[in-house]
Amino acid sequence: MYDLIILGGGPGGYHAAGLAAKAGLKTTLFEKRSLGGVCLNEGCIPSKALLHSAKIFDYAKGEGAKYGVNCKEAALDYPAAVARKDKVVATLITGIESTLTKAGVEIIRELGVIKGKAAGGFQVEAAGKGYTARYLLICTGSEPVIPPIKGIEAAMQSRDILALTEIPRTLAVIGGGVIGLEMASLFNSAGSKVTVYEMTDKVAGPFDREISDALQKVYEKKGVAFKLGTAVGDVAALGVEKTLCCVGRKPAITGFGLEALSIPVQKGAVLTDEFMKTGVPGVFAAGDVNGKYMLAHTAYREAEVAVNNILGRRDMMEYHAIPTVIYTNPEAAGIGHTLESAKEQGIAATETKLPLYHSGRYLAENEGGNGVCKLVWSGNRLIGGHILGNPASEIVSTLSALLYRETSAEQIKKIIFPHPTVAEIIKEAVYHA
Amino acid sequence: MYDLIILGGGPGGYHAAGLAAKAGLKTTLFEKRSLGGVCLNEGCIPSKALLHSAKIFDYAKGEGAKYGVNCKEAALDYPAAVARKDKVVATLITGIESTLTKAGVEIIRELGVIKGKAAGGFQVEAAGKGYTARYLLICTGSEPVIPPIKGIEAAMQSRDILALTEIPRTLAVIGGGVIGLEMASLFNSAGSKVTVYEMTDKVAGPFDREISDALQKVYEKKGVAFKLGTAVGDVAALGVEKTLCCVGRKPAITGFGLEALSIPVQKGAVLTDEFMKTGVPGVFAAGDVNGKYMLAHTAYREAEVAVNNILGRRDMMEYHAIPTVIYTNPEAAGIGHTLESAKEQGIAATETKLPLYHSGRYLAENEGGNGVCKLVWSGNRLIGGHILGNPASEIVSTLSALLYRETSAEQIKKIIFPHPTVAEIIKEAVYHA
Repeated sequence: MYDLIILGGGPGGYHAAGLAAKAGLKTTLFEKRSLGGVCLNEGCIPSKALLHSAKIFDYAKGEGAKYGVNCKEAALDYPAAVARKDKVVATLITGIESTLTKAGVEIIRELGVIKGKAAGGFQVEAAGKGYTARYLLICTGSEPVIPPIKGIEAAMQSRDILALTEIPRTLAVIGGGVIGLEMASLFNSAGSKVTVYEMTDKVAGPFDREISDALQKVYEKKGVAFKLGTAVGDVAALGVEKTLCCVGRKPAITGFGLEALSIPVQKGAVLTDEFMKTGVPGVFAAGDVNGKYMLAHTAYREAEVAVNNILGRRDMMEYHAIPTVIYTNPEAAGIGHTLESAKEQGIAATETKLPLYHSGRYLAENEGGNGVCKLVWSGNRLIGGHILGNPASEIVSTLSALLYRETSAEQIKKIIFPHPTVAEIIKEAVYHA
Repeated sequence: MYDLIILGGGPGGYHAAGLAAKAGLKTTLFEKRSLGGVCLNEGCIPSKALLHSAKIFDYAKGEGAKYGVNCKEAALDYPAAVARKDKVVATLITGIESTLTKAGVEIIRELGVIKGKAAGGFQVEAAGKGYTARYLLICTGSEPVIPPIKGIEAAMQSRDILALTEIPRTLAVIGGGVIGLEMASLFNSAGSKVTVYEMTDKVAGPFDREISDALQKVYEKKGVAFKLGTAVGDVAALGVEKTLCCVGRKPAITGFGLEALSIPVQKGAVLTDEFMKTGVPGVFAAGDVNGKYMLAHTAYREAEVAVNNILGRRDMMEYHAIPTVIYTNPEAAGIGHTLESAKEQGIAATETKLPLYHSGRYLAENEGGNGVCKLVWSGNRLIGGHILGNPASEIVSTLSALLYRETSAEQIKKIIFPHPTVAEIIKEAVYHA
């Protein structure tokens, strides 16, 4: 008899498992594949390792000359970059395993399937063996959406493209969202002729439109072709060596026995409330499976909320300050409302905009950059922030802290940002409001 | 008749001038040299531009091979890097000039000298012409300390070393503080044989000792020699091609007529209170001249406080959340208390420490890195944070926001940091506490 059974060892599942076990719950985690989920094994981490190699290669190929650094015969040893990426992933998987084991989590390398509820608790079966627990946490994640396109079964998914060891001469990317842009960036740097196909009229999904457009322009200059408002009908007709399909992901809700407990599902996602409770008392869910913000850091926080509620500690999920990052070069990052999303929700919002060249550090490190910082306000309170320019990914945490603490313009003016940094642009933008 | 006369056009002076003029004060700024002060002309900005070239060169020379990027015959065209640095500085100077002019500041390119006070206001003379104002703001900055060492007049100051267009074969750096470490880093990357001489038993001044030591070890591995606890007696005896003297800076308090108003000075610095008022009513001071935290971002904030108090707006300077950055490669950054400084002040503090390899992004981008994050707590409240590892400079702003808002561990746990970022280490460190 366990206190907690967790289905799925991705960011939500492993984080919850560690917290629960440290808090004294007898916890078991079911994961048939590698620990770390999509994020660690075929998403965030491997892509960032390869994108770092690509960025260094960009400097070596010619970008560095702007800064006085010249290289002859710069070459990207792509198999070496991939081998290093695999090593990074393996190191992190080992780290998770060791953290969980130290915390006292029992890890079962099988698919756990819910069988029902008896007096003793929730019943889960794996490899013919039965397990029972007082609480269940569903962290089964998500899977790629496969669009009804002729020949799509021949296309790569993100896991496949990250496992390539050769650079395709030509690459079509179906889907101009975050993953599509990052892969276009990686293979553009590595030498592929890349074309991005996107059904809507903009790249980067709901990301701030001005920044999405500016990012697209940067990549057009680098040689990536964009076909917006374009539905692909036939993969073979694209006439490319390789095709990546990344039109979106959907919650993974089948094969885990959700129906055995009649766990309410809506629009293909497990319904959760702000305590991460599903419709069945004692059953919680966290991460992509609830279809809300399919991002690893959302899963982490949802996992914390779920475990705290299981432990009887008051905690609640808030979705107003969740950052999104696009790890292109330049990076883009945003959090909270755009002016557009605020208007859609009837919030009277205003916007402050400042080009990043107002930051001395940005100017020193980004020759010819077109970076920008946009802050969105409801009256005097910051409700959104959007940055194009390196290292937006690392700066947006400051915006996370400011939004979480509901910080006003007057308060931001009193925070001392180190000089010279790109992050200073936040304070500068407030002063330019 | 002016509302406000500002002496000195560095970060404190130009920022104050812009704010005051925008708020409707008739403002004039005296600066004989280039606008931007030491920071822009011979400090923060030129050094960051050159350090960025050095970082790219490090990758080209061999560091990149760890990530699969190989270069033959990597070369640093140092004159080109210097020319670009000069261009960046010139662009920023033009920017300040244009901002101030637009705001309505009168800029006078002369040395302003205080002559006294008459019924009409404070009197300042420049190039034989007289000016009068209701308020005075002293932003005369600082100048290098020249230690009593034989032959020291032949040594370079930081302005000289940043103007070099050739890489010295051998370089001695007298003073192992922030400037010394940054210049050692730059010229080590560029190819000089560098030796750092430091009188105390550690580098980086009051910076967290463990991080200072770790940073020193990184540079020892890169070939920099450190002579700690060593007083240099004779520059010629060092037997090097070039010597940099950077043992510290002192407030610039002579030649501006401070004595005409008997403005109180203590230990060579203009005394200021938390409203940036000097001992003479109506006379304010901001920046290095008060000898408190000789950092550009401190000057900015002090300038804001001074202008707000002149305008009759309540504002007060707080010194508990001022970040310090060392722009070596890896960078180091810190804010607030170290465990040591807390103990010295009788604060019962505890420390949380986490190696940066717990961050997947750090691991992906920093092969073999020895980065670390240390958080200092008074009970449940964050009172300090110290990071070794790139990009510490941009991450420490998040700590600025957290310290300014007096954030507790429980609150930090609820902030959603984007994954994967190095900044996440802050939340991870809280969870590992």
